[in-house]
Amino acid sequence: MSKDDELRLLDFWASPFCMRVKIALSEKGVAYESQQEDLFGGKSDMLLKSNPIYEKVPVLLDNGKPIVESNNIVYYIEDKYPSTNPLLPSCAYGRSRARFWADFIDKKIFEGGMCIWKSKGEELEIAKKDFIEILKKLEGAMGDKDFFGGDNFGYVDVIAIAMTSWFHAYEVFGDFKVEQECPKFGCWMKRCLERESVSSVLPDPEKIYQCVVMLRKMHGIE
Amino acid sequence: MSKDDELRLLDFWASPFCMRVKIALSEKGVAYESQQEDLFGGKSDMLLKSNPIYEKVPVLLDNGKPIVESNNIVYYIEDKYPSTNPLLPSCAYGRSRARFWADFIDKKIFEGGMCIWKSKGEELEIAKKDFIEILKKLEGAMGDKDFFGGDNFGYVDVIAIAMTSWFHAYEVFGDFKVEQECPKFGCWMKRCLERESVSSVLPDPEKIYQCVVMLRKMHGIE
Repeated sequence: MSKDDELRLLDFWASPFCMRVKIALSEKGVAYESQQEDLFGGKSDMLLKSNPIYEKVPVLLDNGKPIVESNNIVYYIEDKYPSTNPLLPSCAYGRSRARFWADFIDKKIFEGGMCIWKSKGEELEIAKKDFIEILKKLEGAMGDKDFFGGDNFGYVDVIAIAMTSWFHAYEVFGDFKVEQECPKFGCWMKRCLERESVSSVLPDPEKIYQCVVMLRKMHGIE
Repeated sequence: MSKDDELRLLDFWASPFCMRVKIALSEKGVAYESQQEDLFGGKSDMLLKSNPIYEKVPVLLDNGKPIVESNNIVYYIEDKYPSTNPLLPSCAYGRSRARFWADFIDKKIFEGGMCIWKSKGEELEIAKKDFIEILKKLEGAMGDKDFFGGDNFGYVDVIAIAMTSWFHAYEVFGDFKVEQECPKFGCWMKRCLERESVSSVLPDPEKIYQCVVMLRKMHGIE
């Protein structure tokens, strides 16, 4: 890696937002250094300095210059390395559709999942129904294609597949199965997991589940 | 306008999100047809059909193909017409910064303003303080340049200046002056208003104020 390509990722293993960046970098075959943040112990000075507005991971440092917000970072990676495994369509309209769905995922999935693991009883039933509704809307965007990117794994696939790393936890706490509720989405998940860029980045679902168990304790649930 | 460039905007005169799109189209010198939606009376079938996820204006129909979410539409306009008055920097890093600040504005300004016109007493004081804090953060992004786009009016300027169309209403209900609290931001607003693309699109602040008076009544405030 030349000095011009010195990429460092301020990272946290359980963050689906960090996973997006790692999947995109892997798709592009770009080497980078991961610097794990201790989000429960205390954020590094580097994180606070490079993302003063949100103080959140991921931050991609490109020769020291910070790029923040995961969606934006993945777009940047595509923008900087467009030739290898292009993630965005070649037409402006296709790109606008990809940005739209990436933004929809950003606004809905993580918060929808949080409503599941934070609630109980009737509230949980509503949260689960809402979450499945979100996935069904998303499923609709795929049409009859294999990927959100059409015939190939693309930008929206990167953005979405990272979020599924928490689904096992949602399923356990919500007592449901994504692949039963949204079979097409379930097939798409399996298809994505066949890619090295995805399988090498997504952690063991059981580890994420244990992380959510800890988060629930921290929030005084159970 | 050739058939290939048939642009129709599902529009609402008081929406700052629609104003963004109109400013961008004006910067590009692209002709379009505005179709006013009656948001209080009932949304058109065309709006419901072309934006089934959010059912909101603006929608830009490019030969019938819908592009939704204002930020995304402005990006699309730049993507489709990059040569005339380029709105984005020529480097990937600059573009990532522009996307970041556009997203920050989207997440903070309109909601921050709504907290002002919806609240009273102590709540109002907090809302006002938070709003000024947001503007100060935004001001910081301009550095010592004339525009968010640097020396030239650019993408973030388009996204931000449209939001200022509601500032007079915030100032009246919050009893403060943006140009006193954030002088640099105030100067930037005046600078933008000198542009034909902006002054021709932004409505009379008094009309927006009357619109907010009506919204307050609808929400049972005062």
